[in-house]
Amino acid sequence: MYDGIVQDLIDEFGRLPGIGPKSAQRITFHILQTPNFDVSHLATLLADIRERVKFCEVCGNVSEQERCAICRDPRRNQTLICVVEDAKDVAAIERTREFRGLYHVLGGAISPIAGIGPDDLRITQLMQRLADGTVQEVILATNPNLEGEATATYLSRLLHTLEITVSRLASGLPVGGDLEYADEVTLGRAFEGRRTL
Amino acid sequence: MYDGIVQDLIDEFGRLPGIGPKSAQRITFHILQTPNFDVSHLATLLADIRERVKFCEVCGNVSEQERCAICRDPRRNQTLICVVEDAKDVAAIERTREFRGLYHVLGGAISPIAGIGPDDLRITQLMQRLADGTVQEVILATNPNLEGEATATYLSRLLHTLEITVSRLASGLPVGGDLEYADEVTLGRAFEGRRTL
Repeated sequence: MYDGIVQDLIDEFGRLPGIGPKSAQRITFHILQTPNFDVSHLATLLADIRERVKFCEVCGNVSEQERCAICRDPRRNQTLICVVEDAKDVAAIERTREFRGLYHVLGGAISPIAGIGPDDLRITQLMQRLADGTVQEVILATNPNLEGEATATYLSRLLHTLEITVSRLASGLPVGGDLEYADEVTLGRAFEGRRTL
Repeated sequence: MYDGIVQDLIDEFGRLPGIGPKSAQRITFHILQTPNFDVSHLATLLADIRERVKFCEVCGNVSEQERCAICRDPRRNQTLICVVEDAKDVAAIERTREFRGLYHVLGGAISPIAGIGPDDLRITQLMQRLADGTVQEVILATNPNLEGEATATYLSRLLHTLEITVSRLASGLPVGGDLEYADEVTLGRAFEGRRTL
């Protein structure tokens, strides 16, 4: 609908997840019509990001160095590893400030439908990290959905061959949520995991 | 929450309209983790867009040349000008394939609250285009809201000093809409603008 580069940029934005054609148009015109929007900064970041961002050779988290900031930090509890599906989950857990151990990013979850098996995940690397006996507990923090549960079950069986405590994040009612609106599976889990007060 | 450039890119995407922090994170990780996403193409487009895109010196539409494709096209009806607020409106009208005349982009609408008066819009340029008597009709296609109506009223008074037909887009029920759910102003307009069959 537009001439050349304007349409090209709209199309390119439209390829990003969660951006439809209308949003892509709005963003493109915002860039064109907002003089103090630093478009060259965004362009430079995009040109550099693939080259500058590596994945931590230890845990698989995003990092600009061979090892990520968390793996390099000697103050983190080296006896505790939290296993997550994705680097975004590391950021989510870090925001809680509840966990001071290390992470291991699997790079997905077991999903027969999507054709993802255990061999497609960073499970061998996890087993190597556990080999020297430093780690005493592995917390399985995969998503509380079908794929995440399957992955947690698979890993827990594998890890029970080692002398390591294996735990799973609690499932239950979200804080601030309303019992009335909870789905039955979540409510069932909340009963199962009830604590004596 | 992330190291260096990853957080920088998330922040930069978060500055675009309609993209919150979660979407910005999702987009950034999509770019990082999708090997066949051509990030360098997006980077190049962004680096070039401001330089390559001009605004048509005649109508104010976006263009890579001094004059836009519509103003350059001799097959367009040169006696008809459709006045719109924004270049995005040109694209919306072009999509209907109903209009074969020329456009004039005002660059906004009169809004005392936002401090935008007639002098901030491309009204002088419109009057210059009408001076030679070629144009016989001006269609006011500003938005059917407070600012758009004020702008249309202002322009219609100004244009009635010339020997030119001035018209306004019809307001009424949206096609495919439901009478029951129409707001009263729209429904009132639909009555006012009723056609004899």
